[in-house]
Amino acid sequence: MNAETIAVGSEMLTPFRQDTNSLYLTGKLNDLGVEVRFKCVVGDDRDDLTAAVKLAMRRSDIIIVIGGLGPTEDDLTRECVAEALNLRLQRDPEVLRKLEERFARRSIKMSANNAKQADVITSAIVLPNANGSAPGQWISGKYDGQERIVILLPGPPNELHGLFEGECLARLKARVPEQFIAARELKIALMPESQVDARVAPIYKTFTDVQTTILAGAGEIQLHFRCRKNSQPEAEARVDEVVEKVDEELGDAVFSRKGESLEQIVSYLLQMRGMTLAVAESCTGGQLAQRITALSGSSRYFLGGAIVYSNELKTQFANVPKALIDKHGAVSREVAKALAEGIRKRCLSSYGIGITGVAGPSGGTEQKPVGLVYVALAGEEGTQVVERNFPGDRKRVRWFATQQALEMVRRALL
Amino acid sequence: MNAETIAVGSEMLTPFRQDTNSLYLTGKLNDLGVEVRFKCVVGDDRDDLTAAVKLAMRRSDIIIVIGGLGPTEDDLTRECVAEALNLRLQRDPEVLRKLEERFARRSIKMSANNAKQADVITSAIVLPNANGSAPGQWISGKYDGQERIVILLPGPPNELHGLFEGECLARLKARVPEQFIAARELKIALMPESQVDARVAPIYKTFTDVQTTILAGAGEIQLHFRCRKNSQPEAEARVDEVVEKVDEELGDAVFSRKGESLEQIVSYLLQMRGMTLAVAESCTGGQLAQRITALSGSSRYFLGGAIVYSNELKTQFANVPKALIDKHGAVSREVAKALAEGIRKRCLSSYGIGITGVAGPSGGTEQKPVGLVYVALAGEEGTQVVERNFPGDRKRVRWFATQQALEMVRRALL
Repeated sequence: MNAETIAVGSEMLTPFRQDTNSLYLTGKLNDLGVEVRFKCVVGDDRDDLTAAVKLAMRRSDIIIVIGGLGPTEDDLTRECVAEALNLRLQRDPEVLRKLEERFARRSIKMSANNAKQADVITSAIVLPNANGSAPGQWISGKYDGQERIVILLPGPPNELHGLFEGECLARLKARVPEQFIAARELKIALMPESQVDARVAPIYKTFTDVQTTILAGAGEIQLHFRCRKNSQPEAEARVDEVVEKVDEELGDAVFSRKGESLEQIVSYLLQMRGMTLAVAESCTGGQLAQRITALSGSSRYFLGGAIVYSNELKTQFANVPKALIDKHGAVSREVAKALAEGIRKRCLSSYGIGITGVAGPSGGTEQKPVGLVYVALAGEEGTQVVERNFPGDRKRVRWFATQQALEMVRRALL
Repeated sequence: MNAETIAVGSEMLTPFRQDTNSLYLTGKLNDLGVEVRFKCVVGDDRDDLTAAVKLAMRRSDIIIVIGGLGPTEDDLTRECVAEALNLRLQRDPEVLRKLEERFARRSIKMSANNAKQADVITSAIVLPNANGSAPGQWISGKYDGQERIVILLPGPPNELHGLFEGECLARLKARVPEQFIAARELKIALMPESQVDARVAPIYKTFTDVQTTILAGAGEIQLHFRCRKNSQPEAEARVDEVVEKVDEELGDAVFSRKGESLEQIVSYLLQMRGMTLAVAESCTGGQLAQRITALSGSSRYFLGGAIVYSNELKTQFANVPKALIDKHGAVSREVAKALAEGIRKRCLSSYGIGITGVAGPSGGTEQKPVGLVYVALAGEEGTQVVERNFPGDRKRVRWFATQQALEMVRRALL
């Protein structure tokens, strides 16, 4: 079975807003074995919305229309879907009563407009919305001889999630032919996509029954595997087969096998070993610490550190001798090492990280170009320093540098 | 005139990838006075892509097809657009020669597939792509009696931007009826949307010829104004009229009038006054420093600071007396004040910021619930501390806290 989503709202046709609900819905539908074949954004326009629904009815089994269920004149979803399906729209007294109760409970006077939210398409099942005033609707039946499911959901993500999980998932499961899908994900840090693919393509290409997708982000490659079989154990076994081989080929380079982020893996490893971390960041200006502390509970292994943007603070907070900076420059292997060792000592942590580099766009020289970054990791066994030349703009260089630091901690803890 | 965009590629129908090119194109088209009426994502599917182009040709003046111009079998844009427009596709010897040259320059053997990228739709103007191998195409003419422009652009954003700005903008300007549009933007930090709207709606509602949009983000409201008139001075004057009144009503609350971010404004003000800043962050864990240092040149006014996640480091780096933490708790007005004053002293900066709070989801108590944050700003004139109860999850609480800190610096510098 396949599906398409139609997001309704002129604000999503501006440069400022994007439809993100379809990503959530795609994930949920894929889990059921339903592929999304098309998605679109329509403004609050009667003709365009009706045309989009009509076209969708011709080709897709499941059509999800998102938004346009509010009380204003711009909210046209109910009317347009009814028109596209050639069905009638009727005010439902039961829905209206609930709407009135909802407003009464909050001691707000319900405006006349709101009554519109009680309009229900003939044959539709009303899907109660615990988080908002607009109920969803579920219509299913034969159209031009084809079985179709049309679902109307409100646009605010929390309402949409609640309604989809509470009201749609079980109904869809009952209608979608039972599918046995197994999915796996491997993540690799700081390796070029071409290099990953060159190593793993010879493996996954022999598994023609497993769908393999490579996604490249900044300093991270994701490998997605998906297999559909006649039983769940069969699907799991088959996908495991390819994942094991790929995992073996890539070895230590694979940092995550269950969707975890690099900072989560570092978090697990530090906690497992009962170790702590501190950082001294120059060019990344706090971004490494920010990534680490974005995880709840990070205080168990992250002590803190210093943002040593000025040279004085490199000395003040991380004991880097002024003479060392004068001799080698702030962006140097030596200063990175001193930062890592100094912050480790000052914070009494198991590991200390030092980062210094030229994030750009200004500040680069011939000897020390934009993108040059030194990352040092100091531990009980000594200090290692890595020199990298990261490509891209300031944002990318800084992100790569934090990725490098986390990857060094991970490898040290393996 | 209106436009629609069709993004081509099955990867954008997964939960992992989104079409962002359409946002860029929408901004550029809006500047020309062209509205985007519809946008969609189509997989690498012949029928769906052809249907989408055919439907677009019936209703939109400008159709931009993004992606699907690569050399693989999945790249169907050229063929499908030709079919939808009932035009032929021919290999262009000149384009082929340039392709071969491109590969030769890089000493890469061109595979037979790549020749496909030299296929050009009859009557199309070839748009050379400086950043990649796939050229764009520009087709214009009458279809069913209507003037239509169809533009084929490659998917990678840097290639698309280069091609659109270098090859399409001037051509579009020559074709789009001259428009006189003036646009303004005001930004407000940390005020609820309802409160902003209650104050400014009575003003903008009297300007029926100015389109006003309110966008609410985390801790930030944007007011967009847009006016179309018969001449540019007329449009500018009219939009300025409403902006001045709204600006006057909101007063100091408006932090940006030219699209600048809050950290940019703080940057300007600090540099104008020749002042410097240092931070001591607990619950925000480096995010404030990260935001400040995301701007190139921030070393001119930002010295650095400390991430004082553990209590020991609050003492070690920001001179917070242990007894003070023991007495009031790490999350307290007193500790925030001591952090701000301590870091200012240690870094010898004009201003010091201290942040401490409960970012959650764990760690909250009845007295100190999740979302409670103290932000302190220490300067020559003394120290102010603000207590806030921010709503939302960890990410949101941390973001709000950094927004609060920046807003306090801004107001102190006014």
